[in-house]
Amino acid sequence: MSCNWGTELWDQFDNLEKHTSWGIDFLERYTKFVKERADIELSYAKQIRSLSKKYHPKRNREDESRYTWFVAFAATLQQLNELAIQREDLAENLNGQIVCELTRYTQELKAERKSHFQDGRRAQQHIESSWKQLESSKRRFERDCKEAERAQHVSNKIDLDNKTDGEKARQTAQQKQQAAEESRKDYVTSLNQFNQDQHQHYHTLVPVIYQRIQDMEERRIERIGEAMRSLAEAERKVLPVVSRCLDAMMEAAESIQPRKDTRQVVEVYKSGFDPPGDVEFEDYSATMRRSISESSYLDNRTEERRQSRKLWPFIRKTKLLFLGMRVECAPLPSQGKLG
Amino acid sequence: MSCNWGTELWDQFDNLEKHTSWGIDFLERYTKFVKERADIELSYAKQIRSLSKKYHPKRNREDESRYTWFVAFAATLQQLNELAIQREDLAENLNGQIVCELTRYTQELKAERKSHFQDGRRAQQHIESSWKQLESSKRRFERDCKEAERAQHVSNKIDLDNKTDGEKARQTAQQKQQAAEESRKDYVTSLNQFNQDQHQHYHTLVPVIYQRIQDMEERRIERIGEAMRSLAEAERKVLPVVSRCLDAMMEAAESIQPRKDTRQVVEVYKSGFDPPGDVEFEDYSATMRRSISESSYLDNRTEERRQSRKLWPFIRKTKLLFLGMRVECAPLPSQGKLG
Repeated sequence: MSCNWGTELWDQFDNLEKHTSWGIDFLERYTKFVKERADIELSYAKQIRSLSKKYHPKRNREDESRYTWFVAFAATLQQLNELAIQREDLAENLNGQIVCELTRYTQELKAERKSHFQDGRRAQQHIESSWKQLESSKRRFERDCKEAERAQHVSNKIDLDNKTDGEKARQTAQQKQQAAEESRKDYVTSLNQFNQDQHQHYHTLVPVIYQRIQDMEERRIERIGEAMRSLAEAERKVLPVVSRCLDAMMEAAESIQPRKDTRQVVEVYKSGFDPPGDVEFEDYSATMRRSISESSYLDNRTEERRQSRKLWPFIRKTKLLFLGMRVECAPLPSQGKLG
Repeated sequence: MSCNWGTELWDQFDNLEKHTSWGIDFLERYTKFVKERADIELSYAKQIRSLSKKYHPKRNREDESRYTWFVAFAATLQQLNELAIQREDLAENLNGQIVCELTRYTQELKAERKSHFQDGRRAQQHIESSWKQLESSKRRFERDCKEAERAQHVSNKIDLDNKTDGEKARQTAQQKQQAAEESRKDYVTSLNQFNQDQHQHYHTLVPVIYQRIQDMEERRIERIGEAMRSLAEAERKVLPVVSRCLDAMMEAAESIQPRKDTRQVVEVYKSGFDPPGDVEFEDYSATMRRSISESSYLDNRTEERRQSRKLWPFIRKTKLLFLGMRVECAPLPSQGKLG
């Protein structure tokens, strides 16, 4: 089947005008669609970015970066920010590559369409005026024929009655006949002109204009297809980056080492003190016996041990630290020997 | 380096309490983070879905589904809706698999942590009361020794002056000596008990409790890691589906055939009429000549041609349709023959 608008749709000016107008409406609608899509991406990116920012560590507690789980979370937030950047880039591409270009293209297309339909209307006006010319010369010919016929009648009738009047009427009839002949020539000229115009109109002008409209329509559709491909392509380009971000998040999650973290806690908090040894006996009865056997050997030995041994903190602080809990308590008695 | 909290951090009860509390804070913070992430996905999905719905065709104009560009756009919207569904599923997975589970786990963890630190406090109370027992028996021994010593002094002094009083004082001194001996035994018992308690405290109870706290902390970190992996995994699962949606969008865009669409326009609008042929000559002078040569052959032939020929529309409608434009106009004259 032929699909040439110029030959197939020669009588569908109004419908083509409507159809191409609908096409441009769609183009504008599609542009708006992509714009709204870009806005959604932008708002999504904004939310993701502020989520990442909100949870970003403020380093106000322990030096958190020494713990693998903490570092992993920071890395996740970093990747999340990367995702936001990707979405922003996508939105920018949609706006720049598609929305802007389609908006500009739509303006061009509107201008082109207007010009084609103006050409159509001009051709229409030309054939109309050619038609009017034909009509008017045809009517003149019709009128002149009638008048010539009437004059001939009169002449024929008078001719039988009166020679002088008959001559005059015959002259009038001859003049009318000549005028009719002139009108006939005019009419034939107008008719030939109209038929020539009409042929050119339907076989050259209209086909050319409609062919241009069809080309324009095909370019519009081609352009829609391109925009749709660009849209899908722009989103596709994001995928590998998103995939890398997710890989990095996964790696971060897998880099978490609970054992290493609890070892870090030891490094941070270990006091270096040993747990207290046995409390020694304090022999208050010693003074009683000292009179019998004076000996400072054991006392001296205790003193030596106390100095060589790493002190545990609550001796210095005069506080008891069982299990690391601070408990207000009487100072430990000075250590003595078990008697 | 050893990383055993039970032996390395025996004196860091307060710090471990703070550190594990911070760990639980983080868990809650992370849960909140995932919740907010899911909310963002849900809001994004909602926007995408309503965009798809908003632009979905309402079939109010021509039967649009006959055009490839229109079908392609509908397919794009369909895929967009599919993307929204994927995002909703993602949000649901984040809420269900991560947020709910972590919330439940955090409650369990809080209960477990509380129980470990209660055990710690109980052990602390026990060693404190053992210490108090030791202190009190030591003081009693100290007092009794002093009293015995004083009684011995008195007895020694009196012994030299008065035999009767001396005997009484000696008996008192002996009783005091015995009481001191009793206190000494008590003190030794308390001391042994305390040293035994203290040894058990620092070498069994504390190590066991702190080891449990460390295990708990390592499980918490492990769990954080799992949650982070789940988060990345849940997002990763979406990628192939998104990729398929984008492939489908690309296919839709590539299925656009401008030539096919303009051929469709021909099918929709073609009237089937041929463009008008030449307008024929109407010979108003014929009646004048008919008297000379009467012949209806050409008129009849014209009539035949008019009936066999497919009429073009403006003849029937008494309207002129040049280029398909409706123009109010005089009816075409009945066709005659060129004379």
